[in-house]
Amino acid sequence: MFASAIIANKRDGLSLSREEIEFIIDGFVANTVPNYQMSAWAMAVLCRGMDSREIADLTECMLNSGVRLERATDRPRVDKHSTGGLGDKTSLILAPLVACFELDVPMLSGRGLGITGGTLDKLESLAGYRCDLSASEINEQLRSIGCVITGTTPEITPADKKLYGLRDVTGTVPSIALITASIMSKKLAESLDALVLDVKFGSGAFMRTREEADQLAASLVQTGDRMQVKTQAIMSDMNQPLGRMVGNACEVNESIDLLRGGGPEDARELTLKLCAALLVATGKSKSVEEAILQLVDKLESGEALRRFQEMVEYQGGKFCDELPLCKATEFVSDRSGVLSAIDGQLLGQAVIELGGGRRELSDAVDHQVGFEMLVRLGDKIDSKQPLVNIFARTDSSRAVAEQILRKAMTIC
Amino acid sequence: MFASAIIANKRDGLSLSREEIEFIIDGFVANTVPNYQMSAWAMAVLCRGMDSREIADLTECMLNSGVRLERATDRPRVDKHSTGGLGDKTSLILAPLVACFELDVPMLSGRGLGITGGTLDKLESLAGYRCDLSASEINEQLRSIGCVITGTTPEITPADKKLYGLRDVTGTVPSIALITASIMSKKLAESLDALVLDVKFGSGAFMRTREEADQLAASLVQTGDRMQVKTQAIMSDMNQPLGRMVGNACEVNESIDLLRGGGPEDARELTLKLCAALLVATGKSKSVEEAILQLVDKLESGEALRRFQEMVEYQGGKFCDELPLCKATEFVSDRSGVLSAIDGQLLGQAVIELGGGRRELSDAVDHQVGFEMLVRLGDKIDSKQPLVNIFARTDSSRAVAEQILRKAMTIC
Repeated sequence: MFASAIIANKRDGLSLSREEIEFIIDGFVANTVPNYQMSAWAMAVLCRGMDSREIADLTECMLNSGVRLERATDRPRVDKHSTGGLGDKTSLILAPLVACFELDVPMLSGRGLGITGGTLDKLESLAGYRCDLSASEINEQLRSIGCVITGTTPEITPADKKLYGLRDVTGTVPSIALITASIMSKKLAESLDALVLDVKFGSGAFMRTREEADQLAASLVQTGDRMQVKTQAIMSDMNQPLGRMVGNACEVNESIDLLRGGGPEDARELTLKLCAALLVATGKSKSVEEAILQLVDKLESGEALRRFQEMVEYQGGKFCDELPLCKATEFVSDRSGVLSAIDGQLLGQAVIELGGGRRELSDAVDHQVGFEMLVRLGDKIDSKQPLVNIFARTDSSRAVAEQILRKAMTIC
Repeated sequence: MFASAIIANKRDGLSLSREEIEFIIDGFVANTVPNYQMSAWAMAVLCRGMDSREIADLTECMLNSGVRLERATDRPRVDKHSTGGLGDKTSLILAPLVACFELDVPMLSGRGLGITGGTLDKLESLAGYRCDLSASEINEQLRSIGCVITGTTPEITPADKKLYGLRDVTGTVPSIALITASIMSKKLAESLDALVLDVKFGSGAFMRTREEADQLAASLVQTGDRMQVKTQAIMSDMNQPLGRMVGNACEVNESIDLLRGGGPEDARELTLKLCAALLVATGKSKSVEEAILQLVDKLESGEALRRFQEMVEYQGGKFCDELPLCKATEFVSDRSGVLSAIDGQLLGQAVIELGGGRRELSDAVDHQVGFEMLVRLGDKIDSKQPLVNIFARTDSSRAVAEQILRKAMTIC
């Protein structure tokens, strides 16, 4: 078998065999398929696509490039994955909330890059929180409290880590097949029984249109099902941030409000939907409606928040029910009208300008900066009305952020 | 400017600017655009295509990566390029024949790879023939005798040399845009006034269908015209070898027959057509018909053959009007019927098995092996009729070649 022939087959639109896909992925990890062949292959996959059997084989080959987490308990194992958006703090609530129902949540999460925030960055706002647990530490924590949110370990899907680095610099990120295999190989390495996917669409999402998001969702669900994990996708709108807070510490604060049963309605609703899907999939609830009632009970009783606090402390973090933020200043409207659009890409860029996000993975993150959105799409806006609270470290970063916000929010 | 953004633009089907193309090609030559970005870009170009302005810019950027041959004389400069096929020896006749009309032919040619034979390999059948002339040696020879057939110099289109090596192993060879830029940058480096292209289609050609060949021809001609070289394409059938001989020394022998005014009709006709196109383009003849008469005269007078002998001797070769070949054995039909198809890919593979072609550029070539085709498509074949004379070095290579020939020739 030759890598160049396999590349040519995909280039010509053929469906690759399991053996061909294995040859490429194993060779890439073993350095016998060099980067220049892998990037040409990835571009051919992006341009010609893959059918669902190929995507499942690719996912499994990437999964098999590393180890899987072992089962720690007899409890069903579940997780959630989001395709990323602004202000998306649902993971922080979902993991401890779902763990209250005798479900294990071994959530291996990531850091923020580009406009999308990272769950690990948010949790690191809590002083001392560790995101580098080993596989045995993960399992010990699952046995004790049923939930963990940490980084992936080096032993899990090395093929994905290596391929992602290459895709990032070769224009081969936006491929349904490659995105599916990347997401699903990591999630399947968690040895799950059920998985719920939050597939976002809109100006602040990776998939700008509902149609693209639907395609990705179908591919993710098919792949999960083929690999015997009960998988469902919930489509969610990302034309404006989820909840009011966008940043790191400020999103933790809002998550604690949500864990107390409060918080903004949109974030609460999406979180409950995602959790309910997992309760129904694992037979903990008969229906979504029943699940929601059970979930609200765990929020209002304080049990979910206690579980969150346990998780934070187990991972070495100092729990704090309201983290300090940089000084807030109001960003006001310069006209009256209706808030008709928010450019999520620009809003995300403004967070990066404040220091709250990363351009490169090696960048440091300022946890105390961010935005509080004071208005929502469709709101009537008066001239001089405050639109956003800006938590900025310096006057200059605030000024840049304000300039971008002015462009990002369309009032007419 | 970032290579990854330029790759993404092509991936998304955008037309690249001159500056973007220059950034990629110059960066590739300077090693600031690494192979893994270049191969992803090449695959995106293959999948999404390029418009004629982009192809001309790409050609010019590749041309500008190296030097051009300087003009040696005041005579018009012309050349021919063929997209490659079996038994194609037209270059050996065309260069000296056209030089008889006060035209300079600075033909930079290549070696055989895969099923396509190489003009330089054929000429090296003549003991001592040098294919590594320097630019100044080329010009000196043009001043003296008006024709040269040698290899390209290292200073000419280094971008093409580097890119071709990468395309070969990344499945990115069959792109109209990349093929056009590769061919035309090398030919334009010869500082030509007129160029004729022999674009072949059929089982023994790079382009299997007439439609593909037409697309490539249009792209080549548009690019030549945009760059102020009078360019025309002649489409030719490659569903069977051109002439009777396929190999190295045996094709030189057949070329000498053609230079004497004899030789097989198909090879004679195509050679005259290609030469006539150049005579008309440079005003040496008023019409193709007139040109043909003039050309036949130079063949029959012996002037063309003398010019060939001069060229061979100028380049250090020992002229010989009939080169020795390996012992011939007849390959006979095992059935009666009509010769309805010849699989050129298989036939080319049989030449490689005899040792007359290359799998890799580093392979050595046996000049004295090859085939003489004794039949043509459409011929009525009797059982036991000789189909091919095989010139083989060993019994074992002959046996392998016979097996392949049996598959390659369809008699029914």
